[in-house]
Amino acid sequence: MTESTLAQRLLAGDRRALARAITLVEDDRPEGWELVREIYPHTGGAAVYGFTGPPGVGKSTLIGALTKARRQQGRTVGVLSIDPSSPFTHGALLGDRIRLTEHFLDEGVFIRSMANRGALGGLSEAALQAALLLDAAGRQEVFVETVGVGQAEIDIIDHADTIVLVLMPGSGDSIQALKAGVMEIPDVIVINKADHPLTDTMVREIRGVLSLANLDGERAGWRVPIIKTEAANGRGIDELVGKLDEHREHINREGEIDARRRRNLRSEVLAIATARMRRRLEEEIAEDTEFQRLLDEVVHRRLDPASAATALLQRGAQSGAARHDLSAS
Amino acid sequence: MTESTLAQRLLAGDRRALARAITLVEDDRPEGWELVREIYPHTGGAAVYGFTGPPGVGKSTLIGALTKARRQQGRTVGVLSIDPSSPFTHGALLGDRIRLTEHFLDEGVFIRSMANRGALGGLSEAALQAALLLDAAGRQEVFVETVGVGQAEIDIIDHADTIVLVLMPGSGDSIQALKAGVMEIPDVIVINKADHPLTDTMVREIRGVLSLANLDGERAGWRVPIIKTEAANGRGIDELVGKLDEHREHINREGEIDARRRRNLRSEVLAIATARMRRRLEEEIAEDTEFQRLLDEVVHRRLDPASAATALLQRGAQSGAARHDLSAS
Repeated sequence: MTESTLAQRLLAGDRRALARAITLVEDDRPEGWELVREIYPHTGGAAVYGFTGPPGVGKSTLIGALTKARRQQGRTVGVLSIDPSSPFTHGALLGDRIRLTEHFLDEGVFIRSMANRGALGGLSEAALQAALLLDAAGRQEVFVETVGVGQAEIDIIDHADTIVLVLMPGSGDSIQALKAGVMEIPDVIVINKADHPLTDTMVREIRGVLSLANLDGERAGWRVPIIKTEAANGRGIDELVGKLDEHREHINREGEIDARRRRNLRSEVLAIATARMRRRLEEEIAEDTEFQRLLDEVVHRRLDPASAATALLQRGAQSGAARHDLSAS
Repeated sequence: MTESTLAQRLLAGDRRALARAITLVEDDRPEGWELVREIYPHTGGAAVYGFTGPPGVGKSTLIGALTKARRQQGRTVGVLSIDPSSPFTHGALLGDRIRLTEHFLDEGVFIRSMANRGALGGLSEAALQAALLLDAAGRQEVFVETVGVGQAEIDIIDHADTIVLVLMPGSGDSIQALKAGVMEIPDVIVINKADHPLTDTMVREIRGVLSLANLDGERAGWRVPIIKTEAANGRGIDELVGKLDEHREHINREGEIDARRRRNLRSEVLAIATARMRRRLEEEIAEDTEFQRLLDEVVHRRLDPASAATALLQRGAQSGAARHDLSAS
């Protein structure tokens, strides 16, 4: 199978081609990058939603319920799970049930998990490429799920058109993270497992946090809605679907989607460039006795880490072709 | 005040010099880097402990109790809080009490918070430099506190000699994150707020997780202890102090501390070098019309992000002196 036919099959919506393509980008294979280059002109059609929130709040169940609703509307769905605690990734270890089982045989649903491992930045890069592949393969709705407290996870979610924060009542961790500004302010907040006595207290707390941050009013014409759901039995899902559609209409109408995508693509280009520079640097020093000598100096407190970094970058400059090679990797 | 006298005053343990020095590195001022270069030969004496765990488990209270215990032993203490939800940082906003109040007038205790904001990597860099400054200023015990789920926070904590994970009973979020491997396996696990009926259940759960990860036995001669504390009333603190001392003796005896510090300093040098390359790249493109043109191509789906990154790095290589300039910034 040549890459050209892989791209053609992907663009035709072939599931096996899609699976193979995502593996290529996940493994950071040159063919993967080449493929994304080839299919990129056919992207931009999907509605991309990012779901973030602590483990255990029911993000997977919620995405399962949304998938069902979108399928009933006749739309195709792609799910990308970057949550290492997700049942898609680690189900057996966690003893959780696989909640999307009912969709596994539906050709209109493509589910893929990616492990949150490897070099920092590496996963974000791969996940963004995978989202492009789902988009090019004609998935109309793309749901990206992460545990949303780390910077790398937030970077991924930031690239969605609509950002959904999922919380549950009685979870102090979650709301404190929101209070503390660890999480970006999302476009939509969902309180799942809302059949809990503390649900309304939590709604008030969140309103309070948004108010402190001066976000209880409208931000660019959009007031962040707080939706109560019980994803396990489908309650509140219709309302959530309605709000997601409303947000999409809003960003389309205001032209905000172009500004978002431009900003996100800018940071994506920079992130890829930085990751390559770092990888190149790591390769350069891997078997470099001069770097080992520098490091000895640092360990013995004769040279500080920043000066060692300066020396390292200076050597790279002197070796001349170094930075040129970078661009080819 | 010249930098030389600032360094001298810092090395003499002057608190105002220490505060000023940390501000310099936090603001990423060249004098800050120069200062760290100057004092670096005098570092390496402090025992550095990293505390991680979700917001709300009582890390600050625990560090307050440990501070008290160490002061009773006559040792000086430095506290560096990188937790954006910490009462040191956002006390008023969160409505939390400042739990270290009793130490504010003690000359032997220096407390400093750093906000988890700004460029990725920027805070890690600054926090590591700040820890060196506390060390050089003669603080014998350095406690570094972060919300430990993100990669940037984990990077900071990784540089400690002893890593302490703080959890509380009944918090599903925390143990799921540990299960999922989001958190590195720590050297010591503390279950705070242990006056809770679910405490012993949680101890069993954690033992189970460690067992699944084949870490219930000894790892390099060290079995991860699980300590129950009630930091608010001091219960369990003596036992924790004992275990921290035991771990320190262990890593000193096994020579593990040298291996740890070498590995950590290596990644610190690389992180600083990478951050500089990225900053330089950002500066290069800030007012660069050619980059804006590239970005337009990406936005209009004519050029994919990875190819744009390649073009960006190639231009850098052609501009020749680019990488040399890097090393001087």
